[in-house]
Amino acid sequence: MAFDRLIEKIAETQNPTVAGLDPKLEYIPASIRNACFEKYGKTLEGAAAALFEFNKAIIDRIYDIVPAVKPQAAYYEMYGWQGVWALTDTIAYAQSKGMFVITDGKRNDIGTTMQAYAAAHLGTTDICGEEVYPFGADALTVNGYLGTDGIKPLTDICKKEDKGIFVLVKTSNPSSGELQDMRLENGATVYEQMGRMCESWGEELPGKYGYSGVGAVVGATYPEQLLEMREKAPHTFFLVPGYGAQGGGAEDAKNAFDKNGLGAIINSSRGIMCAWKKQNLTEEDFAEAARNEALRMKDDIISTIGKISL
Amino acid sequence: MAFDRLIEKIAETQNPTVAGLDPKLEYIPASIRNACFEKYGKTLEGAAAALFEFNKAIIDRIYDIVPAVKPQAAYYEMYGWQGVWALTDTIAYAQSKGMFVITDGKRNDIGTTMQAYAAAHLGTTDICGEEVYPFGADALTVNGYLGTDGIKPLTDICKKEDKGIFVLVKTSNPSSGELQDMRLENGATVYEQMGRMCESWGEELPGKYGYSGVGAVVGATYPEQLLEMREKAPHTFFLVPGYGAQGGGAEDAKNAFDKNGLGAIINSSRGIMCAWKKQNLTEEDFAEAARNEALRMKDDIISTIGKISL
Repeated sequence: MAFDRLIEKIAETQNPTVAGLDPKLEYIPASIRNACFEKYGKTLEGAAAALFEFNKAIIDRIYDIVPAVKPQAAYYEMYGWQGVWALTDTIAYAQSKGMFVITDGKRNDIGTTMQAYAAAHLGTTDICGEEVYPFGADALTVNGYLGTDGIKPLTDICKKEDKGIFVLVKTSNPSSGELQDMRLENGATVYEQMGRMCESWGEELPGKYGYSGVGAVVGATYPEQLLEMREKAPHTFFLVPGYGAQGGGAEDAKNAFDKNGLGAIINSSRGIMCAWKKQNLTEEDFAEAARNEALRMKDDIISTIGKISL
Repeated sequence: MAFDRLIEKIAETQNPTVAGLDPKLEYIPASIRNACFEKYGKTLEGAAAALFEFNKAIIDRIYDIVPAVKPQAAYYEMYGWQGVWALTDTIAYAQSKGMFVITDGKRNDIGTTMQAYAAAHLGTTDICGEEVYPFGADALTVNGYLGTDGIKPLTDICKKEDKGIFVLVKTSNPSSGELQDMRLENGATVYEQMGRMCESWGEELPGKYGYSGVGAVVGATYPEQLLEMREKAPHTFFLVPGYGAQGGGAEDAKNAFDKNGLGAIINSSRGIMCAWKKQNLTEEDFAEAARNEALRMKDDIISTIGKISL
C-alpha cells in the first residue's frame, strides 16, 4: 500500500515532512528565468522551463533528507499547458530521485469523470492498446463533497497501482469553518463527518502500519481539531498544511501524530522555496537555503514529537 | 457580467443548453484517430491531436444553434499535458466561433493558490511584464467546501475580466446525498447551505437579468431539489448536469427555470458526442448526428419550458 512506502521513507529519513513545490515565477532567481527567456522568450514555455529548472535544483538539494514533495497543480496550470508539462517533468524527476510525490490537485467529480482524473494523476491511459502514465504521481489530494461515487474510482486505481489519496477534511484557511465546522443533526461537524467517510473508504486499502490508503488533509492552523481527528480517525494518515507561513508551529502539528510519531506528514511550501530571504542569502543560493530550512523544520518537528519508530 | 452575455446568447438561439465536450478516445472515429496516430504515433500527443480534431468538427456543426460548450478538464488531463494543450485549443476555437466556454474543472483551494487557479482558467498570468491568458474560459466550475477564502479570488477576477463561476451545490450523482443531503443544526441541508453561500458570494457580481456571476451546479437527476433551490436561490444561475445519459428528462430540468425560461443551462455530453450510435449512423457522421441531437434536445426543452424572453 502506497502510504506504507511513504511511512517507511519517513522513518528512514526520520523526517515527517513534505516540501511543497508551488513555484511562482517571482520566487525563481533571475539567472534561471533569464536563461529560459533567452531560449523561449517571455512566454508560457519560457516560464514553464524556469519552473522545472527551479524545482530540479531544489529536489537535487533535498532528496536525501526529505521523503516527499507536493507540487500544487494550480501553480503549474497558471502557466498553461506548458506549465502542466513542467508539472509532469517535476513528478518524474522527483520520483527518479526516490521521492514520494503527492500531486495537490483537490480533484473531484463523479463516476466515469472521476475515473478519468484517477487515470490521469495516479493510473494509466489506454491509447488504442498502448498503456501510458499521463502524470503518475504516488498520491493525489481530492475533495469528497460528491460522496462515494467520487472516491470509489480512486480507491480502485489506488489498489491496482499502489497509490493513495488525501481527502479534504479540515482545511487550514481562515474561512474553512464556514461549512466544515457547521454541526449536523447527527451531532457531528461536517469535517468530522468527512473524517468518518475517510475511515470507511479506507477499509478497502488497509496498510501494515495501521494507516489506510485514504488519508485526510487537516490543517496545522486548527490544532484542537487536529487532535480531535487524530483520535476519531485512527486509521487515516494526515497531510498537514499550515505549518510556517500560514502560522502553525511544531507544537500545533504535533497533534497530528500518534505515540510512535507516525500518522502524518507536515507540508511547507513557501518556507522552503523562499528560504533564502530569511537566511540573508542571495536568491542564487535558494537551493542551499531550501536545504537549510528543510533540516531546521525536520529538527523542529522531531524535537517536538520524538523519534519515529515503525 | 459574464452570465448576462450567456443569457443573451441563450435568448438569441432560444436554446438553454450547453454541449459537454468530454472526448474519450473511443468516441472518436477511426479516420480521425488514425490520421493523428500516423502523424504522432500512438502517443499522448497523437491522442491530444485527435481530441482537438474531434471537438473542432463538433463545434463547426453546432456553434450556430448551441450557445455554449463545457469541456470537462478530466478528459483532457487523462491524456497528460498534451491533452491539456488540446483543452487550451478547444477553448480558443469555440470562442472564435462565438461560443461561451465553461471549463468544468471543479477547482478548489485557498487564498493565493485559488488566485493561481483563477488566473489560470479565467484570468491572466504575468510573465515578467507580459500578460498572457493561459486558458481564458468564460466560466469555471468550482467546489465551495473551503468557504469564502476559496471563492473570493475567483469573484475578484470575475469582476475584472467579465467571467463567471458555478459552485457545486447538489450534484447529479447517486451518492451526492451522502454529505450534501445531511441536515445541519440550523435546519438547512448542506446543499441548501451551499446555495445560501452562492447567493451571498453573488452579491458582488450582480447581473442585469437578475442572475449574479456566481452560479450553481444542481443536477437534473434531483428534480425536487432543483425546484427547491430555484426558489431559495433566486439570483443564482444554474448549470444542470444529468439530462440524458444520467436519466434526467426535460420535465425534470424544467424545475431549473424561472417563469421567463431563464435561470439555467442544461448540459448534455455523451448524448451529443455519441449521438451517431442512437441515430443508426456511422461514426464518420458523428458531427451531423451531434447537430441532430442538439436540435432534438433544444426542441425537447423549449417545448417543455416555452419561449425564452429577456
